Amino acid sequence: MKPCLHPSIVTTDSLESYLALAQRCHYRYVDVDFRWIEQAASQQSIAYVQHMFESHGIELASFGLPVAVHGDETAFQTTLSQLPEVAGNALRLGATRCVTWLWPSVDERPIPYGSRLAVRLRACADVLATFGIRLGLEFVGPHHLRTKQYPFVWNLQDLRAYLDAIGAPNVGILLDSYHCYTAEVPMDELLALEAHEIVHVHVNDASLPPNEAHDQERCLPGDGQIDLQGFVAALEHIGYTGPLSLEVLHQAPLPGRDDDIAKRMYETLNQFIAHAREESIGRG
Amino acid sequence: MKPCLHPSIVTTDSLESYLALAQRCHYRYVDVDFRWIEQAASQQSIAYVQHMFESHGIELASFGLPVAVHGDETAFQTTLSQLPEVAGNALRLGATRCVTWLWPSVDERPIPYGSRLAVRLRACADVLATFGIRLGLEFVGPHHLRTKQYPFVWNLQDLRAYLDAIGAPNVGILLDSYHCYTAEVPMDELLALEAHEIVHVHVNDASLPPNEAHDQERCLPGDGQIDLQGFVAALEHIGYTGPLSLEVLHQAPLPGRDDDIAKRMYETLNQFIAHAREESIGRG
Amino acid sequence: MKPCLHPSIVTTDSLESYLALAQRCHYRYVDVDFRWIEQAASQQSIAYVQHMFESHGIELASFGLPVAVHGDETAFQTTLSQLPEVAGNALRLGATRCVTWLWPSVDERPIPYGSRLAVRLRACADVLATFGIRLGLEFVGPHHLRTKQYPFVWNLQDLRAYLDAIGAPNVGILLDSYHCYTAEVPMDELLALEAHEIVHVHVNDASLPPNEAHDQERCLPGDGQIDLQGFVAALEHIGYTGPLSLEVLHQAPLPGRDDDIAKRMYETLNQFIAHAREESIGRG
Amino acid sequence: MKPCLHPSIVTTDSLESYLALAQRCHYRYVDVDFRWIEQAASQQSIAYVQHMFESHGIELASFGLPVAVHGDETAFQTTLSQLPEVAGNALRLGATRCVTWLWPSVDERPIPYGSRLAVRLRACADVLATFGIRLGLEFVGPHHLRTKQYPFVWNLQDLRAYLDAIGAPNVGILLDSYHCYTAEVPMDELLALEAHEIVHVHVNDASLPPNEAHDQERCLPGDGQIDLQGFVAALEHIGYTGPLSLEVLHQAPLPGRDDDIAKRMYETLNQFIAHAREESIGRG
Repeated sequence: MKPCLHPSIVTTDSLESYLALAQRCHYRYVDVDFRWIEQAASQQSIAYVQHMFESHGIELASFGLPVAVHGDETAFQTTLSQLPEVAGNALRLGATRCVTWLWPSVDERPIPYGSRLAVRLRACADVLATFGIRLGLEFVGPHHLRTKQYPFVWNLQDLRAYLDAIGAPNVGILLDSYHCYTAEVPMDELLALEAHEIVHVHVNDASLPPNEAHDQERCLPGDGQIDLQGFVAALEHIGYTGPLSLEVLHQAPLPGRDDDIAKRMYETLNQFIAHAREESIGRG
Repeated sequence: MKPCLHPSIVTTDSLESYLALAQRCHYRYVDVDFRWIEQAASQQSIAYVQHMFESHGIELASFGLPVAVHGDETAFQTTLSQLPEVAGNALRLGATRCVTWLWPSVDERPIPYGSRLAVRLRACADVLATFGIRLGLEFVGPHHLRTKQYPFVWNLQDLRAYLDAIGAPNVGILLDSYHCYTAEVPMDELLALEAHEIVHVHVNDASLPPNEAHDQERCLPGDGQIDLQGFVAALEHIGYTGPLSLEVLHQAPLPGRDDDIAKRMYETLNQFIAHAREESIGRG
Repeated sequence: MKPCLHPSIVTTDSLESYLALAQRCHYRYVDVDFRWIEQAASQQSIAYVQHMFESHGIELASFGLPVAVHGDETAFQTTLSQLPEVAGNALRLGATRCVTWLWPSVDERPIPYGSRLAVRLRACADVLATFGIRLGLEFVGPHHLRTKQYPFVWNLQDLRAYLDAIGAPNVGILLDSYHCYTAEVPMDELLALEAHEIVHVHVNDASLPPNEAHDQERCLPGDGQIDLQGFVAALEHIGYTGPLSLEVLHQAPLPGRDDDIAKRMYETLNQFIAHAREESIGRG
Repeated sequence: MKPCLHPSIVTTDSLESYLALAQRCHYRYVDVDFRWIEQAASQQSIAYVQHMFESHGIELASFGLPVAVHGDETAFQTTLSQLPEVAGNALRLGATRCVTWLWPSVDERPIPYGSRLAVRLRACADVLATFGIRLGLEFVGPHHLRTKQYPFVWNLQDLRAYLDAIGAPNVGILLDSYHCYTAEVPMDELLALEAHEIVHVHVNDASLPPNEAHDQERCLPGDGQIDLQGFVAALEHIGYTGPLSLEVLHQAPLPGRDDDIAKRMYETLNQFIAHAREESIGRG
């Protein structure tokens, strides 16, 4: 596992300064606001952006699914037809992961809603498969988002069932410590996963109890009450080797300078990882 | 389209007498209680049963999916492993249609329930595909079956969405006039179907309004208030050419002798068909 | 199994007279020159043609794959785009079988040739699958067709391997007694087939030894030296229940009137079938 | 693109010393004799091997397909059943590429041979897909390997056709400069590739003309007459961003010490890459 910088924990908003920051703080993977990439590619070229990443020794860990899977059929088809170009560009920056998330509750009846969405996600996955890119789906745990008329995907069990229904081999799980905490996913469910089921991981923390924690009020790993050491140890135990991305959604500004936060988080995650590895190798 | 005899409208309960009755009344297709077939095949052989069908000039229109798709995983896998033998036997009797139905409401949350069921139906369809057999799914309309905690598949729109989610090319619609009536499927939805979406058709009638009609209190075509002439004309219009099966679930006995009922129904359906064809050729 | 009339054994060339002939001679299945159907449908309508078939009690057993799988990419795509309409029309006439054949030898290197063809046949099969139609492929045995530079599909073993490579569940075998004879397919290979692997069957005879028989000089079943009783018995043994089509390619005219030939062949095939069934039921 | 060390250019034969060498010479990717990995994993654990890779900052670029696709059915099935474990271990070391190669000629007739192989490679690809691993197939160019009875896969065109026949989205091309040279693949065919069609790349050189070069007598990049600058520039032009692996099959020992060769090759490849990038950015 490797720490992965995420734009949510820093204030910089240019691709160049973000990549330089990542390099200064020893990150090898970053998640990025893809609009930065599109802007730089349109001003220069994707070869130029690729060179920016390579010259900083940085790879793109993932990119958000750029397809309007919740839109009307025209919007969906239009954006789906653009997916190959986006996927090709992302792959040039090293990305083999594309991610999106699912609502915990919906107002439309679940079968028409979930069936249409499954068909669309399968179509996206089929496009991504030719690029060797996997699609990670995230269940969303906070209870304040369960209030629409019908339940949709609440937790890890629901997500795994829905992944089976989609039935595309390159679709898997985007696992987020905050959603595992708020959905109260038991540790033995994490330990029962196989590493290849996980496409990407978000690591962040919560300061309120599971049923009160708000989706937009997360805190930095180590600053809250989630057992992140246990979370990372579970991932090590099952053999997950990908990025741990610092997606920390929040509304109040985080205290501290970008470099300080990014460095501290790099060290924090590496401590979790090192400790997990010692345990794992100790066990055999 | 051709009328198809169904065991629910007669009292005979032996395969031999049922096939003889079908032949006397000019049917070419029958639906059958598959246990009759299994009993005859185990007493004699499937070749013998095949000869019974052939010597009466009768083909088996469909057979019920013999897989425990609602059972636990062991029951499902065990019965799935037996599907090739049943499918092979049914095919020897002429059947190219396998059918089952879906609940309108369920107590389990819809995504885990519907996802597991989709995976299982897809597995059944994959087995049936090698036999050239299609799987028809039926939505169930009566409102008294919508009372469990969550809605599942209510109507034709829901079913078509769910079929897309299953995503197997040989899965389609089992269309039942009673369920179209109780789910108040608009005529333009029927006319928008393509013939090949329909795997099999049930024709029966209702004596109560759509939201009061009970699933087990159907009546013979022509004895109720469903516009069956319009229903059959819509099927003719879109080019459906398969069987119209007389599945009439009921609790009180139907009045009349088997031969009288079977003959009358053969004529009733043929009148619907002939009238629909005249309209269709007139138009087209 | 049921005898199936084929245009090659009669001289009539109008759909109406052909269907009337088939009915007079008690056939239930026919193969047809599809151009007759297209002509009648364009003059009247497909509903009218469907009524012609139904009023004679006749079903269409199969139709030739109307896609230019050997043409250039434009020709292929154009004809593929027309397949849904043809398939829909054929289905209205009862057809659930589409057929084509493979060369035994080719001048292009086999891997580019066979790969391109596999991709195209798979694309055709995917379209047909939504109509519940299977695609039967025929290997071609006569040795005078093995003279191009490279061998392609010579016999039943080659065909089964190639079907696996195509990998579509609704693609199977069109089995022809003449090709089994000329390719010297051993009886135990026929007996090892499962019924559902066979999509359609051609029955015809040869008057020359296997390695001399010419593809266009076949004779009527019973008039040559192929063990057709053994061929039909093998099909009965494995449980094949579909049509036996009288495709008898020849250059010199067949002696006799259409009605006499069609009636005699109906009886000949039924004798093979009856004898095979007695054996089969006798064995249990 | 990044240089990737390959065991064929060095003499060290322990995993630890090989990884240390790679690190000293600034490689980030290595190809490895997988037996080294299995030995280390069996002596310690796969977690230990993973730690070895991580502590040297090295990722495994690819692993050879460990399935007996050319063996009898039992050998194939046995080794296929072991593929998930190998794939899971390889993924822990960073590998997202699995590779194998195809004969240019065969003694068995091409359709049964190529069909069976396509079915088996598809089965392997389906297993790998759940791990997000792609399977790269290599065509083999040297003419002395074209002498068996029938041609199989000679060149890039043949390979692309065969990949279409296999039809699995995660199967693509392993491109080798030596095979492109000996098969005389035109530059415009390379430039017509899309980056995502290429799974992995081998870079090595030849000292004899295309039709004389022997498969086991390759030389180090830059020491022969292949236009490797053009080869790498073509890859840059189409946007390939993966490893360039130094697979140099040879019989006479390479002159020089491991460190000298590995360093020189790292610099040689990086010069090709840098020059290609300048051209590419210059063009826009």
